[in-house]
Formats: sequence, C-alpha cells, structure tokens
Amino acid sequence: MKKVGIVAKANSPLAAEGLKILTAWLEARGVSHIIDEESARVAGLKSGVKKVDLARQADLIIVMGGDGTFLGVARLMEGNNAPILGVNLGGLGFLTEFAYDEMLPALERVLEGDFISEDRAMLDAVVSREGKNVTSYTVLNDVALTRGAFARMPHILVYVDGVFVNEYVADGLLVATPTGSTAYNLSVGGPITHPSLGAIIISPICPHTLSNRPIVIPDGSAVEITLDPVIHTDAVATMDGQVGFQMSFRDRLLIKKSASVTRIILSPHKDYYQLLRGKLKWGEKP
Amino acid sequence: MKKVGIVAKANSPLAAEGLKILTAWLEARGVSHIIDEESARVAGLKSGVKKVDLARQADLIIVMGGDGTFLGVARLMEGNNAPILGVNLGGLGFLTEFAYDEMLPALERVLEGDFISEDRAMLDAVVSREGKNVTSYTVLNDVALTRGAFARMPHILVYVDGVFVNEYVADGLLVATPTGSTAYNLSVGGPITHPSLGAIIISPICPHTLSNRPIVIPDGSAVEITLDPVIHTDAVATMDGQVGFQMSFRDRLLIKKSASVTRIILSPHKDYYQLLRGKLKWGEKP
Amino acid sequence: MKKVGIVAKANSPLAAEGLKILTAWLEARGVSHIIDEESARVAGLKSGVKKVDLARQADLIIVMGGDGTFLGVARLMEGNNAPILGVNLGGLGFLTEFAYDEMLPALERVLEGDFISEDRAMLDAVVSREGKNVTSYTVLNDVALTRGAFARMPHILVYVDGVFVNEYVADGLLVATPTGSTAYNLSVGGPITHPSLGAIIISPICPHTLSNRPIVIPDGSAVEITLDPVIHTDAVATMDGQVGFQMSFRDRLLIKKSASVTRIILSPHKDYYQLLRGKLKWGEKP
Amino acid sequence: MKKVGIVAKANSPLAAEGLKILTAWLEARGVSHIIDEESARVAGLKSGVKKVDLARQADLIIVMGGDGTFLGVARLMEGNNAPILGVNLGGLGFLTEFAYDEMLPALERVLEGDFISEDRAMLDAVVSREGKNVTSYTVLNDVALTRGAFARMPHILVYVDGVFVNEYVADGLLVATPTGSTAYNLSVGGPITHPSLGAIIISPICPHTLSNRPIVIPDGSAVEITLDPVIHTDAVATMDGQVGFQMSFRDRLLIKKSASVTRIILSPHKDYYQLLRGKLKWGEKP
Repeated sequence: MKKVGIVAKANSPLAAEGLKILTAWLEARGVSHIIDEESARVAGLKSGVKKVDLARQADLIIVMGGDGTFLGVARLMEGNNAPILGVNLGGLGFLTEFAYDEMLPALERVLEGDFISEDRAMLDAVVSREGKNVTSYTVLNDVALTRGAFARMPHILVYVDGVFVNEYVADGLLVATPTGSTAYNLSVGGPITHPSLGAIIISPICPHTLSNRPIVIPDGSAVEITLDPVIHTDAVATMDGQVGFQMSFRDRLLIKKSASVTRIILSPHKDYYQLLRGKLKWGEKP
Repeated sequence: MKKVGIVAKANSPLAAEGLKILTAWLEARGVSHIIDEESARVAGLKSGVKKVDLARQADLIIVMGGDGTFLGVARLMEGNNAPILGVNLGGLGFLTEFAYDEMLPALERVLEGDFISEDRAMLDAVVSREGKNVTSYTVLNDVALTRGAFARMPHILVYVDGVFVNEYVADGLLVATPTGSTAYNLSVGGPITHPSLGAIIISPICPHTLSNRPIVIPDGSAVEITLDPVIHTDAVATMDGQVGFQMSFRDRLLIKKSASVTRIILSPHKDYYQLLRGKLKWGEKP
Repeated sequence: MKKVGIVAKANSPLAAEGLKILTAWLEARGVSHIIDEESARVAGLKSGVKKVDLARQADLIIVMGGDGTFLGVARLMEGNNAPILGVNLGGLGFLTEFAYDEMLPALERVLEGDFISEDRAMLDAVVSREGKNVTSYTVLNDVALTRGAFARMPHILVYVDGVFVNEYVADGLLVATPTGSTAYNLSVGGPITHPSLGAIIISPICPHTLSNRPIVIPDGSAVEITLDPVIHTDAVATMDGQVGFQMSFRDRLLIKKSASVTRIILSPHKDYYQLLRGKLKWGEKP
Repeated sequence: MKKVGIVAKANSPLAAEGLKILTAWLEARGVSHIIDEESARVAGLKSGVKKVDLARQADLIIVMGGDGTFLGVARLMEGNNAPILGVNLGGLGFLTEFAYDEMLPALERVLEGDFISEDRAMLDAVVSREGKNVTSYTVLNDVALTRGAFARMPHILVYVDGVFVNEYVADGLLVATPTGSTAYNLSVGGPITHPSLGAIIISPICPHTLSNRPIVIPDGSAVEITLDPVIHTDAVATMDGQVGFQMSFRDRLLIKKSASVTRIILSPHKDYYQLLRGKLKWGEKP
C-alpha cells in the first residue's frame, strides 16, 4: 500500500481522537497518508485533501464512522478499486466491519497484505434529457425515486432490457444492490439479498396498487425509468440516501451494473448472517 | 333543502356537461343553488361563489368528480353538517357513492327527504409553537407527516393521551380515520377499519425498525406528535393528501376527533364490503 | 377475597418453587386457596382441583407462568369475573404483568383491595351443523381457522352481520380481540389494537389474493364463517392457539363478543406502550 | 420428437374434449404418443401409462390444465429434459403458456422444431435421518416446511453452506425457486424473482419475530434445515404444494439446486412482465 487515505465522520469526538491515534501510528511506521479535508478540520490537523481526490488516489482507504460515512467515500472512487477498511464508531455496521478497538491490529495485518476482502457490485445511474446525458452517479446501496414534498404522487414507468414492467403509482420506487438490500430496501419491504448474488432489486415504495411487489432481476439487466408524460409529475432521485437530483417527466433514468466495485475488507470474526441477526434483533444462535 | 351547493372536478369534460344538466334540472324545479367559482368557470357559467363559502352555507352539497373532489369540500365545511351527495365520474369511489347516471334520480329522492346518510368522523389537527396555535385543519381521511424532499429522515415522537408511544425513525407517520383507512393508509400497510368504529389509526411509513406496526386506538384519544429536538429534523404535514404545512422541530401537532362530521348520502344499492371487493379487486361473491 | 385459585406452568422449576412459597404465604395469613391439580403435582403438593372447577370457583386467580398459562385459565372461567394476577416467570408478558419478585408484595395489596384492574373483552365461538350447536368456546386472544396438514388450501367465506365480506383463498383466517392483537395476529400482519377499543380484527393468513388486508370492525358485530361448499375443503379452528376443532364445509362458525370478560390486575409500574416497545424491541424512550 | 406424452387435468370436461382432439390430430399425422393413465380414463380412452413412466420417456410433453397439472409432471421427469408445452384450460397460467385455441397451431410449430424454450431451475430436497437418506424429491416451485394441524409452532434452524442463518419460530419456512417465486412465495411475502436469476428464496411464514424477512441467496448454495432438538417440534414438508412428508426433529432436510431442469416451451406472444401484470391485476400498459 503506497498511500493510505483517511476519512472520518464529522461531529464525532471519537473520530477526532481516532484520527490522531491513527495518523501518529502511520507516521511512526513511515506510511504515506492523506486525510479528507473535512476530517482534518475535525481533528485539528493542518492539511487535508478533497474527499473526491482522496477517493481516486488512495491505495487503501480507512473510514471511521458509520455506514453513511463509508457510502460517501465509496460513491466517489470511480474505478479506483482500492480496498476500504471500515471502522465503526457506534453500534453494528453492515459496511464498517471493524470495531474501534480492532482498528490498529486490523490495519497492521492489512499493511502486511494479510486480509480478505469482498468486491461489492455498484450501480451506475445516468439521467438523460432529449438524448443527452445530464448527470450520472455510481452508487453502492441504492437509487430512490420519490415524491417531492408538496408534490403529486409520481407515476413511474419501469422497463427492464427494453421490456415494459409496470407503471407504479406510488410514493416512489427503489432500485437497490444486494449491499443496499439491508438498508432502505428493508424499510420499503424489499428482500434481503446476499451480496454474492448478481442481482438488482426493484421495489415500489407504498404503492397504490396493493399487489405490487418487489422484483429481483439479474444484474446484467438495464433498468430504465421515466415519469408518466401525461400526468406530468416530477420526482426526486436520491443516491445512497445522500445526494439528490430533481427529475422531470422529460428525463430518463438508466440504471445498470457499474464497472466499478467497492472492495470491502472483511473482519475474520464476523459472518453475514451473524450481522443480520444482530442488526435486525433476530436473537442469537441457540 | 333550501340551498344546494355544487362542486365539480376541474378539467373534466364530463363534469362540465354534468354541471349544465344539473343546473338546468334544478332551475326547472325552482331549487335555489350555488356553484363553486372554479366549477362555474369549467362549465362556462357566469356566477360562482368561493368554495369555502359554499361549504359553510349550503344545505345539501353535490360533488361531481372523484374522492379527491369530495375531500376538498368536506374539509372546508367546519361544523356545517349538510349531507353530501357524491357523483363519481370515473370508476368506483369510496366517498362518491353514485354513478353519473344515477345523479338526477338520486337527487330527486334526496330533495324529497327520501335518503339514508352516514356520519363519518373527522379529525382536528392543530399545530402549535411555544404554546400558541399556529394553524389548524379538519380532515376526513388523514394527516400524513413525511420527510421533505432532500431532507433527512424525521424522528417522530408520538404520545397518546400524554403517554409516550414511540419514537419512529421513518419516512413518515400517518394518522387516519376509519374513512381514510381505505385511502393512503392501505399503501402504508394500515388496516381497513370499518367507518362505524370509533377509532384512529397510527401507522409508520417505511419505518427503519422493522417491528414497528400500525396501532388502532379509540377515537376519544388525543394524539400528540413532535419531532426529535436533538436531531433537528423537520417534516411536512399533509391534510387528506391535499394541503401541506412545513412543520419544524419546535412545533407540536395535536390530533383529536373533531366535533364536525361528514354526512355522506349512501347509495341504497351498495354496501361497504362490496365496495372494498371492487376497489381492491378481491373478486366477486361466488 | 374468599378463595384464591392458583395455576402454574408445567415443567418449570421456578413455578414449583413459587408454588411452595405462595402456598406457605397464604397459609400463614389464613387465606383459603385451591390449586390446579396439574400444578399441585408439579409442586409435590397433595391436593389439587380440576382447572375448570378452579376457574369457575375462585374469587382471585394467581397465574404463574407465561401468557399461555394465563390464557389456559381465562378461557375456562365462563362468566366468573374474578380478577387474575399474572406472574411472569420468564421475560416480558402481555398478560402476566408482574415479575416473580413482585408476586408477594402485589398479592398483599390485592388482598387489601388495593389494586387496579382492566376488563378485557372475550369472544364466543360457536360451531353449528345443520342448525344445531356442535361445540362452543370462549377465547381471550383469537380464533384461527387454518389449513389442515396435507389438506388443500381452504376457501373461507366471511359474513359480518349477515353481509358478505369476502371469500378468502388463504392458509387461514384469524379473528382476534384487541388483547389478541399483540399475539398471533401480529405474525399474520394484523394491526396492534388498543385493549380499550371495542373491536374485532379479521385478518387473512397468507392470502392468495395479495390485496386482501386485515379488517377491524366494531365488536358489536357477528362474524360468521363457512367453508366453500363446492370446493369441499375442511379446516382446523384453533382457540387461543391451544385447543383445536376440525371444521367441515358443513359447519358454520359464529363469532361474537362474549358476555364474559377477563379481569386483569395491572401493575402500577407499567403502561401498554412501554410493554409494546419492550416486547417488539422498538427501543426505549429517548 | 419421437414420442409425445400427454397429461390432462382430472375432472375437466374441456380436458376430455381436448384429449380427443389432440390424439386424433396426432394420429392423423402419424405421431407416436402416450397418455397418462388417469388422463386416459378422463377421456374415455383405452390405454394409458403411469404418469411417472410418461414423465421419464416422452420426448415432448403436452400438459392440459393449470399450473398444478404442469408441476405434477415436471416433478417426475428426473433428468429427462424434454420440453413441455403447457395448455391453460382456465385463466392465465405462469407455466401453461398457451391458450386452448393455440394448442394445435403451437404443437404444429413445435413438431417442426420451430419454438423457443426456457430452462427453469429445480431444487433437490433430500431428507436424511442419522446420516441415511430417507427420501428425496425434485421440485420446480418450492419446498414448504409448515406446522402440522394441532401441532406446536415449529422452531426451524437454517444453515446456508454450513453457516448458521437463523432459528425461525414461525408457522413455517418456504424455500422457493425463481419459478416458484410467483406461487405460494408471494402469499408469504417473498419477492418476485426473475426466472433467469440463479437464486433461491428463503422466506419465513408468519414469523413470531416481526423483523424476520425473506432472504435471496445464490443457487449454488446448500440450504440445510433442521428442527430444534430441545423443543421437539415436528413439521410437514410439502413439495410444490402437492406432496407431503412428515419431518421429525431427528431429520435433516437438505435443499440444493438440481441437475434436472424444466424446459418450458414459451409462447411468442407473451412476456414475463405482461404475465405478472395480468395475474397480479396491476393494470395494463398505459
């Protein structure tokens, strides 16, 4: 690992403390590192780089915070497949696998190349208008298309690989990766989907038609979404619950599996189902 | 019936036609009537009155349109318990009981006093800030508290009769009457509740905690809602899906059964369960 | 209180211990008491009476166990409105309000008449064939009509007050009281219903038609259930999840509010919503 | 196609008529065919063969009936990958793609080799006791493990690839293929899963823990199911809703993707999403 990038949650005293310990530890070992400028400010450190630059340049990224902090970096990496070591500062995290106490021992092993990682699929979401690309995003969890505040209920048309699926009259529609299946997707009634399955999950949010249900499709599919041109509703597209875009009935949203992946460093002490049971309070193994 | 008030759906050719037929029919019988000004414009009629004045003055109200048109009048009646004859211009309606073809025969019987009606409970929603009332509404269907576009997920605290119920981390919360139970309430997973039951339904909308479920309470209860003062989220309160109010974490929303009711004229040819089966496509009686 | 009846959970060492402590305590105070014969055997005590006799004769009933033990007594009381003090031997109970440690202090207050109680509605379920009553039950939680093992999916017809509601093609149908709303009713998707609301909840169990939803009706209603006579399916009717009856397509099941109630002694330290939050793991008050 | 096998629904006058027309048509063209013995009886035809023999020997199978008739043959084919032409005698079918009127034209094209087909994944379900195989099945839709009538609620332990997933306290557990995702799976709340996705869906049926949700996993996984040995519950395993097996807490049920597939002849006039919209009454394309 030539260059370690560090990103920490804002407004967290524990993150500030962790940043100091971590940077001191890296300096003592002569490991080159860069810090996200916002995180640097939090820790009272002088120099920081823009998060987007860090995301594209680092050979290893350490994230201190919750899943939200993790998502905020992963979405900016654009083809940089550097592994991410997630350190959870609060309770359990689906993405931040390591506890605060485990950070330095885990990092030591990672720097020695002694770690296992998992590549998680991402989705590219491209908005076009009259045939021209307007904007695009790469997400790790999901793209949500929802009703704007004070706005009418959107009528959302979905096509998969050019075949008409349905016109959803609903509060919204969620398109999620397996990684995102345990996030907002659960709240809207979508199924838990194992990260190793090559799938995309399309779930209506509070649909008007009660028999509308989530659909799981192969991740080789192209999902195309438009808004009913007669009803003239608009909608808000939100990426990983963090970044929004106002979509009009003239726009076309195309969602496909991304060439980028997110490489998560896994804790050797956890498994996927254990995490599920803990986060969803299923109770423990008898 | 001294004075008949007429309200019709906007942008509907059938409503325009119906207005002409209806007013001619009433004039031929010497029945005094007033028309909502927006509806009058639709029909090319000269004089109209404000909808709110019509709602408070009429001794009988005829609504031509869908359930939305009906709700828009009922919410303005404020203690005027005049019966409402709803004429559905489209498919089935939960509130607009009569088909277009049935309008004049039904009206004839109503003017002779030969009709049955049902009083539907309404809710008063009062918003206060620092102890002072800011605004208030009376709704027939529901009060929805939802996340604003681009806003954070609200943390919604609910108290019933002063007792803490729960802090919902969710897309929103819906408080519905039995009449509203077959509207947005169904989309968010709330139960169908018979209109003759004195109940209020509190349903989380896409809650973060998967075990949160709708709660049905007696309609003598006071439901008090605030937003978490630490998290500082705001939310949008929407009345019957039609009128919105931006609520801040300083506000307190108090929902109670209203002294007002909505008096619906019932079709003698329909029953509640038949309507349910039709609207929800359950199939017909074997 | 002239005569105290005692019922304890079978196969529980803690119940056996509790029985000894409790009977010694009562004898020291000269309080007349009877013990259910099965419970007496558990505790190695000589004399016991039949549970059904105890249920009808006692002036106060103490239940040690879980909600199941409580239900098993309440169902046998038939118009004996003696209060029941429930002592929970395990975790939280919806019916057994007191912890094991609270048993004797609570009992002391109860014997002095210093307690609050709540009357919970029950349902009478009567099975008739060719106009004759075959059997009847009184339940506190629910009546479940479900598919027999290896049997075809039943087609269940429901009428409320003589009006056809629906033909459910489903794994079954649940008719629950508000008290039962937090038991099996939750698993089948029915709403939590406050015990003070006079309501009956009718919920389909895994219905074939996805738009079938739970319906809440006033508890003055008569719910009549039959099985489709053409399809010739049968079904199993289960009372409070404990006692079953094989119902054929020739039978008619009539469910109405019972004249009997269950009088639960309430803990002064608990409230309904606190119990909900605890049992359903919603998290605690912030 | 050397030998055509024919299976028709029992107790169907239309099936009887169809069988006569079909056999006459095949004889006129000199096409060798065999009829399932039960179907032959229905049609008043002399000779029939056992359904299991037909399923293993035929080079093309024609099924007249509904999806149930189709499943009943598919499950017996054991490695015979002959294509199946499904003719629906009633409404829409997910498996029986052709309408009655389309049967002969479709068959004509099929015999000329002019058709498209789709291979659907099946599951092998093997029951073992003390290390020895007791029985095994191959299913196209699903394996349901459910509570027996009058029996206690089962406690079901699930392992995927040897890793503990959860102990479900529930009415049951459903393990479905993508093909089965639109059958019983929908009733229990499982997601629609596209048939081209290599997935297995594990869904709890009315779970006691409300946060238990369906899980979709890759179909290369081995799903192992046992019953809690302490609680000593038993359960009924049902294959495609048609064939049952009483499973004890000593048994182990192993479910894996089968080497067998079901080859369905597709109608050129239908697509998957169109079928969904029709069967689930979502409404048609605007």
